[in-house]
Amino acid sequence: MALTELSPSYTTRFPSSQLALVSTRLYSHRRLALRPPSRARNAKVLCSIAPNEVKAPVTPQVNQTENKTDCFGVFCLTYDLKADEETKSWKKLIKIAVSGAAGMISNHLLFKLASGEVFGPDQPISLKLLGSERSLQALEGVAMELEDSLYPLLREVSIGIDPYEVFQDVEWALLIGAKPRGPGMERADLLDINGQIFAEQGKALNAVASRSVKVIIVGNPCNTNALICLKNAPDIPAKNFHALTRLDENRAKCQLALKAGVFYDKVSNMTIWGNHSTTQVPDFLNARINGIPVTEVIKDTDWLEKEFTEKVQKRGGVLIQKWGRSSAASTAVSIVDAIKSLITLTPKGDWFSSGVYTNGNPYGIVEDIVFSMPCRSDGNGDYELVKDVIIDDFLCERIKKTEAELLAEKRCVAHLTGEGNAYCDLPGDTMLPGEM
Amino acid sequence: MALTELSPSYTTRFPSSQLALVSTRLYSHRRLALRPPSRARNAKVLCSIAPNEVKAPVTPQVNQTENKTDCFGVFCLTYDLKADEETKSWKKLIKIAVSGAAGMISNHLLFKLASGEVFGPDQPISLKLLGSERSLQALEGVAMELEDSLYPLLREVSIGIDPYEVFQDVEWALLIGAKPRGPGMERADLLDINGQIFAEQGKALNAVASRSVKVIIVGNPCNTNALICLKNAPDIPAKNFHALTRLDENRAKCQLALKAGVFYDKVSNMTIWGNHSTTQVPDFLNARINGIPVTEVIKDTDWLEKEFTEKVQKRGGVLIQKWGRSSAASTAVSIVDAIKSLITLTPKGDWFSSGVYTNGNPYGIVEDIVFSMPCRSDGNGDYELVKDVIIDDFLCERIKKTEAELLAEKRCVAHLTGEGNAYCDLPGDTMLPGEM
Repeated sequence: MALTELSPSYTTRFPSSQLALVSTRLYSHRRLALRPPSRARNAKVLCSIAPNEVKAPVTPQVNQTENKTDCFGVFCLTYDLKADEETKSWKKLIKIAVSGAAGMISNHLLFKLASGEVFGPDQPISLKLLGSERSLQALEGVAMELEDSLYPLLREVSIGIDPYEVFQDVEWALLIGAKPRGPGMERADLLDINGQIFAEQGKALNAVASRSVKVIIVGNPCNTNALICLKNAPDIPAKNFHALTRLDENRAKCQLALKAGVFYDKVSNMTIWGNHSTTQVPDFLNARINGIPVTEVIKDTDWLEKEFTEKVQKRGGVLIQKWGRSSAASTAVSIVDAIKSLITLTPKGDWFSSGVYTNGNPYGIVEDIVFSMPCRSDGNGDYELVKDVIIDDFLCERIKKTEAELLAEKRCVAHLTGEGNAYCDLPGDTMLPGEM
Repeated sequence: MALTELSPSYTTRFPSSQLALVSTRLYSHRRLALRPPSRARNAKVLCSIAPNEVKAPVTPQVNQTENKTDCFGVFCLTYDLKADEETKSWKKLIKIAVSGAAGMISNHLLFKLASGEVFGPDQPISLKLLGSERSLQALEGVAMELEDSLYPLLREVSIGIDPYEVFQDVEWALLIGAKPRGPGMERADLLDINGQIFAEQGKALNAVASRSVKVIIVGNPCNTNALICLKNAPDIPAKNFHALTRLDENRAKCQLALKAGVFYDKVSNMTIWGNHSTTQVPDFLNARINGIPVTEVIKDTDWLEKEFTEKVQKRGGVLIQKWGRSSAASTAVSIVDAIKSLITLTPKGDWFSSGVYTNGNPYGIVEDIVFSMPCRSDGNGDYELVKDVIIDDFLCERIKKTEAELLAEKRCVAHLTGEGNAYCDLPGDTMLPGEM
């Protein structure tokens, strides 16, 4: 990916300040030295920096003059939050990268992040928007709308097309951008094309992100993209990578509520098992309504075993038919939910679903894939798997099916995870997420 | 506008509840008796109900079986919030109508209203979505996404195409829907077409809304639409109607911040005078940066007098060029700002802009139009005009120009405000808001 000098419109927006104590700048030093050689198909994964070059976690600082690559407009200012009465009790700025930043999901998400709705009213935010060369103008438009929103907590916005710049020191990476399947494209081609994006982004995270970065992969096929991403970031704990299945969880809760005739806040303990695809398993066996097992509340077993799962899986398609667009707003809400679940204590007895790396799981799911499972968090950004779930034969059989699909996807991207040559034998009856 | 029976898909989503204490329903009694005769061009405005038929403000109630017209999915449930531990300390439900509910601005706004970001974490919300026959499927899509977002505060969502149903008992009406100017359409035609929409909606508000309803008109030309709306709602105080100029205010603050090299939170006392159009007057004379008059901070008078105003006026156009879409997200943010400004105490010494009815204003602006002026609020939903502003010759001249435009627009819609026959002599050098 070539470095692109940004358009002259940047300089025209640059304030000609006469005020003291304020300095502005546009470009910063770019860490070109850290860039690995351009990626090659079927190549072994290379750690893009040697272990002794790995930087310690970088604490965000104000008034630093580096790390403000391609900042935008009013967000190019530097200032000392500690010097100001209203802001001196605030936490330290956190850097959040969002890919696919010119897309519709991001258009909802970025404003939620900036408003304080996600990280709280005392957490200043730096947004680092990753787009493509094609979307650079649109990214500027997004940045302008963020300016015009006057969010007090939003202190930095930068835009770029190079993940090695955009991911610099980020504490969160919300990876939304991915290509949809084009006409005549084989499923294996799509896995490869998107896999390459996430391999590149994994390498970039490994090279420049905070060592404690949390990564949420939204771009589909998100489980396998997450696997590729984490395999390309060996210096970041695999546990820090999540594939988003929270929208499925939310939809499952809503469908159970509708069926039971209760408000959705009465539904808890909802697990989505496996792949964010049509093989996903919304788990009614362990879910609860008003604390009571769903199977004791909804006696219509046939509905639970057939229609329920179908309703959750097909919700996105129905929505596209009605609304003419994909579900950007509720996807953004579910990303917010996913983040909040990691930074707040999970309510006692409850859990949430996330696609996480299988490494010593108690459910007998094969290791070394990214599989959605029930998680709990202490609110420190980390999670642990829930132990006390029931898995009966019906549930087990379906879990095996989604597991098989993920293993097939994994074989299909072996060239991107450093495990040799790819071999694609995807089961014929499954579809990639979002496909109708 | 014909009453349309809704599609069968409603009934298929209806939960077959077996739980006690919960009842669900789809249709409610429609107040057909209150419908005025269908509107006629050039007709005198008729008060659609006689004064003695005017209902006292209706306090929202839970467990009532009326007023749940065309409710959607899980939001058709009725329940007693006072009976539940988590919700018993909540305020009473408020009903909020949003027109143009299938559009992009609403797609941002509805989720903000539902999240609690606007009215606070203890204010349950009923959203009443007004669309057109054409957008009914899309409205269902929006309602589905609202369901899937699981917002605890969002307790009712109903959708409809008849303002006499949708506006029933609403405390807030956020009127976003309006037609853009089509090819070959004269400006007078557009004023008439959109004016008719707002005349109808004014009548409907007058007939069925809460007597203390606050109305924010966003659909353009918003000042004149607001005038038409309030003239058709004689039983609702004219003071309760606002034309949105908050996005202009926010943009003006951002441009001053950029020029001065300060963060936008340092800019205060920003007035937009007049029409939300290219004749609008962003007032740098009374605005302040860090409490100091802008003219003492930014010495570049030429920039202030020419470029600044142009930058604010043309911001929307630049954004469309870059982003390929209009500024839906920041418009939604500014609607939230406008609401919050009315329900929270205005910070000491500061003010906000809103297009309000001129009725005894201290600035010498002609009476009986809707003009954006500096306002303060006690946080009770009401406002008062700010008295201590300076108006110099330069500012006065520009205020007169935007006033003249609004008077011309008013003459052009006289048939919709009950003031006889329309006479259109719109000045040639102005444009309607949003036009490039």
